[in-house]
Amino acid sequence: MNRPFAITPRDIEEAADRIAGHVLRTPLVAAPRLSELIGAEVMVKHENMQATASFKERGAVNKLLLLTEDEQRSGVIAMSAGNHAQAVAYHARRFGIPATIVMPETTPLVKVENTRKQGARIVLHGETLYESTDKAREIAAAERLVLIHPYDDPAIMAGQGTVAIEMLAEAPDLDVLIIPVGGGGLMAGNAIAARAIRPDIELIGVEAELYPSFLNALDGQDRSIGGPTLADRPVIRGLVADIVPVSEELIERAVNAYTSLHHTLAEGAGAAGLAAILKEPARYAGRKVGLVLCGGNIDTRLLAGVMVRELERESRIVSLRLTSDDRPGLLGKVASLLGREGAKILEVSHSPRFLDVPAKVVSIEVMIETRGVEHSCAIEEALAQNGFVLLHLKP
Amino acid sequence: MNRPFAITPRDIEEAADRIAGHVLRTPLVAAPRLSELIGAEVMVKHENMQATASFKERGAVNKLLLLTEDEQRSGVIAMSAGNHAQAVAYHARRFGIPATIVMPETTPLVKVENTRKQGARIVLHGETLYESTDKAREIAAAERLVLIHPYDDPAIMAGQGTVAIEMLAEAPDLDVLIIPVGGGGLMAGNAIAARAIRPDIELIGVEAELYPSFLNALDGQDRSIGGPTLADRPVIRGLVADIVPVSEELIERAVNAYTSLHHTLAEGAGAAGLAAILKEPARYAGRKVGLVLCGGNIDTRLLAGVMVRELERESRIVSLRLTSDDRPGLLGKVASLLGREGAKILEVSHSPRFLDVPAKVVSIEVMIETRGVEHSCAIEEALAQNGFVLLHLKP
Repeated sequence: MNRPFAITPRDIEEAADRIAGHVLRTPLVAAPRLSELIGAEVMVKHENMQATASFKERGAVNKLLLLTEDEQRSGVIAMSAGNHAQAVAYHARRFGIPATIVMPETTPLVKVENTRKQGARIVLHGETLYESTDKAREIAAAERLVLIHPYDDPAIMAGQGTVAIEMLAEAPDLDVLIIPVGGGGLMAGNAIAARAIRPDIELIGVEAELYPSFLNALDGQDRSIGGPTLADRPVIRGLVADIVPVSEELIERAVNAYTSLHHTLAEGAGAAGLAAILKEPARYAGRKVGLVLCGGNIDTRLLAGVMVRELERESRIVSLRLTSDDRPGLLGKVASLLGREGAKILEVSHSPRFLDVPAKVVSIEVMIETRGVEHSCAIEEALAQNGFVLLHLKP
Repeated sequence: MNRPFAITPRDIEEAADRIAGHVLRTPLVAAPRLSELIGAEVMVKHENMQATASFKERGAVNKLLLLTEDEQRSGVIAMSAGNHAQAVAYHARRFGIPATIVMPETTPLVKVENTRKQGARIVLHGETLYESTDKAREIAAAERLVLIHPYDDPAIMAGQGTVAIEMLAEAPDLDVLIIPVGGGGLMAGNAIAARAIRPDIELIGVEAELYPSFLNALDGQDRSIGGPTLADRPVIRGLVADIVPVSEELIERAVNAYTSLHHTLAEGAGAAGLAAILKEPARYAGRKVGLVLCGGNIDTRLLAGVMVRELERESRIVSLRLTSDDRPGLLGKVASLLGREGAKILEVSHSPRFLDVPAKVVSIEVMIETRGVEHSCAIEEALAQNGFVLLHLKP
């Protein structure tokens, strides 16, 4: 690699001027409840408030505005199952540039439709983004379109780096900046920008341990497509103090903390920075930490599942199968007992017989809301004392 | 009413100076996707980013800081099932002031626990906020505590009015400001502030049609407690151009639009302003509209339900019971047929027999994700042509 820094701080400053007015200057917001949770002073950069809910618009707009008039007339092509696709399609339409997006055939329908709605031509091809990339190069050559790579392009990297410029303009006293690594464009661009403005700032990269992972697969991040890139690992390693891997469980906790304590939506990769703090809170104790909430495109049903699982983890939602003798009025008895103990019944399913229990007993399945672990234990004890056999269910 | 304006613009400016540094100066953010949806230029004031996720902290902090040292030592008491409770408890703890919160016995456990965690003494009393109020007055007299009313107090109204000052400082060219009426404090405070800064601005009040309503009951808003208030209806009517009632369905659509298009959490009352625009988009077409997203405390399970119902409304999630002859391999046949049609199976439930269908046929229940209405129709036609009898299910 004889070009470790494909872009200079100057490129990023110019990108900032170029994209102004086309992408949002997103707010950098103090997050008091997250700060309390982890014992650091947390500031969140809300890239999830961009029109297509991710930082990808910065690079896409910078690239689109650097095209020649001829290139703009011919059009662009991009491969992406997620945020890059939407960013390119959205702004190409705004600028009147024809756009083609190649997506893997496995892309969730909602994402395909959302991109199609932006006026882009959609080509579904291959099982993975790697196959889509080959197809995109093929179409680009045949139709003379400019290929907009999601991260391996100096114009893209420079655009993404504008995040750090805005953060340090508003909070020049940040001690640490935590940035998701992803494909590398966000990390490299912002590391170069931040180093130039604040040579002493601590930069932390963060990435999901598993790849491809459940959450990331579902929220449609653009993972590494393979081959050498401008922002490959050794380059990034040289710019940051550390690259922290975070588990899926920590990412899920971080997504939930953003929802319940900061009332904002984060996709898996978007919450990775917060996950890194949850992993090592002592490292950040008492320091002023800037987090890039880089994307908010989380699937509705996935988010609902994450939120309910968190309540289960805290034993604030408990699902039980109660088995007892088959007597009339049993449901009433259970309901009053739960009411007396202060449990709130969320769901109940009572059928005269289940095949897996003896014929003379009856089962009731209940999902209850409690005040937490101690309360749940007390309720279960009361049920047992009243002759119920309990079985914990995983809903 | 011989005191139509219990506070002056000056009171609100002083409140703004007083609360600075104690509550967040929340961001006012352009919402490009919401703007596209409704054809107006929408700016959202994110009061849901306050520590306890609502504007109520502004009034509470202003009131707490106006107490004498003696009053601060004795402590305060408030009645609320929701945001006012959390705002008072949170900041009383920060200032080292003892706080008692009276809540109806019907308050959701999570809200009780969240308030208790802030270090407040909790008194559960009565079925409604009205009964809690009597109890709060009784305890206040007996223990010489200062009662902090959720809205019927000039210090509270002045605090809430600081929202408009911040909005108009950042976007002095707003054409319209839409503010939820609620108890009246937010509406009156902000109307007085906005009128003083921009006499020509159009002010719209908005409130839920039903009272008490499903959404509002669940998200714990503090509704009118009864009796004359400083900000009662005639006073508010004199300040605003119009008070727009919005239906529960519109509020639900607005909550969902905030989640899916702006990636932020709104409770029912918090989304009322957006609901007003959804009701009469022509009224706001092409104008610059400021919305106060006044609270983000929406119940996790309620939000999940709202999001899934919206997908169902758009026919992007469809639940069907398929009945057919009882033949081996049927599940496989259904699955391949759906796959061929491009439907994604989200849930499937296949049991050998249901009691409500004849013994020789078999039922399969599926929840599928589609691209929308047309796609759903095509899939159902294909199923019917393959001999399935279809029944739509409401999950």
